Amino acid sequence: MISKNKLKELAAYRLQKRCDEEAVFVVEGPKMAAEALASGFGIRVVCATAEWLSTYPSTTALRRSPSPNLGEEPECFEVSAAELERLSNFKTPNQVWMLVEKGERLKVKGESGLTLALDHIQDPGNLGTMLRTADWFGIRHVVCSRDTVSCYNPKVVQASMGAVFRTQIEYVDLPQWRANCGMPVYGASLQGEPIAGHQPLTTGHSVLLIGNESRGISKEAMAQVTHPVLIPNLGGTAESLNASVAAGILMFYLGSTKECKGVQGAQDNTKIDTI
Amino acid sequence: MISKNKLKELAAYRLQKRCDEEAVFVVEGPKMAAEALASGFGIRVVCATAEWLSTYPSTTALRRSPSPNLGEEPECFEVSAAELERLSNFKTPNQVWMLVEKGERLKVKGESGLTLALDHIQDPGNLGTMLRTADWFGIRHVVCSRDTVSCYNPKVVQASMGAVFRTQIEYVDLPQWRANCGMPVYGASLQGEPIAGHQPLTTGHSVLLIGNESRGISKEAMAQVTHPVLIPNLGGTAESLNASVAAGILMFYLGSTKECKGVQGAQDNTKIDTI
Repeated sequence: MISKNKLKELAAYRLQKRCDEEAVFVVEGPKMAAEALASGFGIRVVCATAEWLSTYPSTTALRRSPSPNLGEEPECFEVSAAELERLSNFKTPNQVWMLVEKGERLKVKGESGLTLALDHIQDPGNLGTMLRTADWFGIRHVVCSRDTVSCYNPKVVQASMGAVFRTQIEYVDLPQWRANCGMPVYGASLQGEPIAGHQPLTTGHSVLLIGNESRGISKEAMAQVTHPVLIPNLGGTAESLNASVAAGILMFYLGSTKECKGVQGAQDNTKIDTI
Repeated sequence: MISKNKLKELAAYRLQKRCDEEAVFVVEGPKMAAEALASGFGIRVVCATAEWLSTYPSTTALRRSPSPNLGEEPECFEVSAAELERLSNFKTPNQVWMLVEKGERLKVKGESGLTLALDHIQDPGNLGTMLRTADWFGIRHVVCSRDTVSCYNPKVVQASMGAVFRTQIEYVDLPQWRANCGMPVYGASLQGEPIAGHQPLTTGHSVLLIGNESRGISKEAMAQVTHPVLIPNLGGTAESLNASVAAGILMFYLGSTKECKGVQGAQDNTKIDTI
């Protein structure tokens, strides 16, 4: 049971601004809820249907979920489908809604293997999908321009399939970061070297830069690309690839060289700025 | 200007059923409208804002757009933003709405290069993105199981970025088709050969089979996969890749071998069944 007032209070977290003020974000659905519970991120509130509460292996575990910042157990409410709809950011709410604390993100030790740099990615689905793909290829460090969509947007969290909990994500002044990163920068360009032919180009720690969905890599940013590459347009009819597909192909291509394999899981707890 | 009755009549095409009955589909937005006009598909109706009509290079060209089945000029209406909203399938309608005839799709000569086979793809965005990627890699032939989402779904058309106009798309009994296709079939499997290391596997005409978003390739379908392949999970934490990203990586990997490059544009006008 949840009171009308409490429901109204929690429904306010549909606004990104409200979430940002308290450094929390919303996680929805059984799949992502399980990821949140396993992640070590602090869980502040859980609202779930009787169905989810009954099938969840252990509500005790749920209540014991670590909440390092507050040192408190999460609040837990059983809600109806209609009440869940009031909270949800999605058309079809799915059993469980959680308020999770952003906390302090883990920092990857050094600049290891392939780093993904995202310049003004606007679509939440694209950002989430790129984080998911990075997670698959063991890329633990993602650097975003400040005008890239927030990684705590509910649609990003959803599309990331949990990667948002496992990846060091920083929002930075990207031109400045690139200038100081001291690594080769790969980026897709029509004047780039075609990557077909299966000759791996990368030779160690490097950056893969992905540009905006409509405009690609900006002229200014392209000046910092040391290794322009081209995904060959074999058909000759399509104008472009979807940004997250292009990113996926390049992550596969650059990430699957042996030199990049050593980076997985190397983490320490150095504090970094969160957005 | 458009009459209330005409608007009501056209708004009925928001229902897929209504479109299917008359073998038409809806195309929206300036980008896809331009693709439709360039495609040679018959245009039955155009509803557009004054803005689109004024910036369109030639309304004469628009009226002369070929409509082989009806042999008629398309009907053309100027509509307000509010009227466009009544017609549109999208939250933010974009200047122009068209009713396009499915007509007879072109058939690729023979079974050339790489063919994409899709088994029960459910998400319209995924199907559209896969068609767009196939278009980029010169894959002209896409075979779908009958339970795959319709390629004429407005969200598929949108995400395909015009590929839906340039690709031979068939809906078939997929197990039967595979049994008779006489080509090697590649499919992603956890027991497959890892495709990292940049050793191209394909040696000519072949099929790339992509399975359902949640379940992957079904056990039954896997029995027909002659070449199981694996996109290595280098991170070890992600459960899966997004279906259209995985498809993109495999199309890049299999499609960018020299053996497949000769197939582009080889088309004749042999009639095939449309859905």
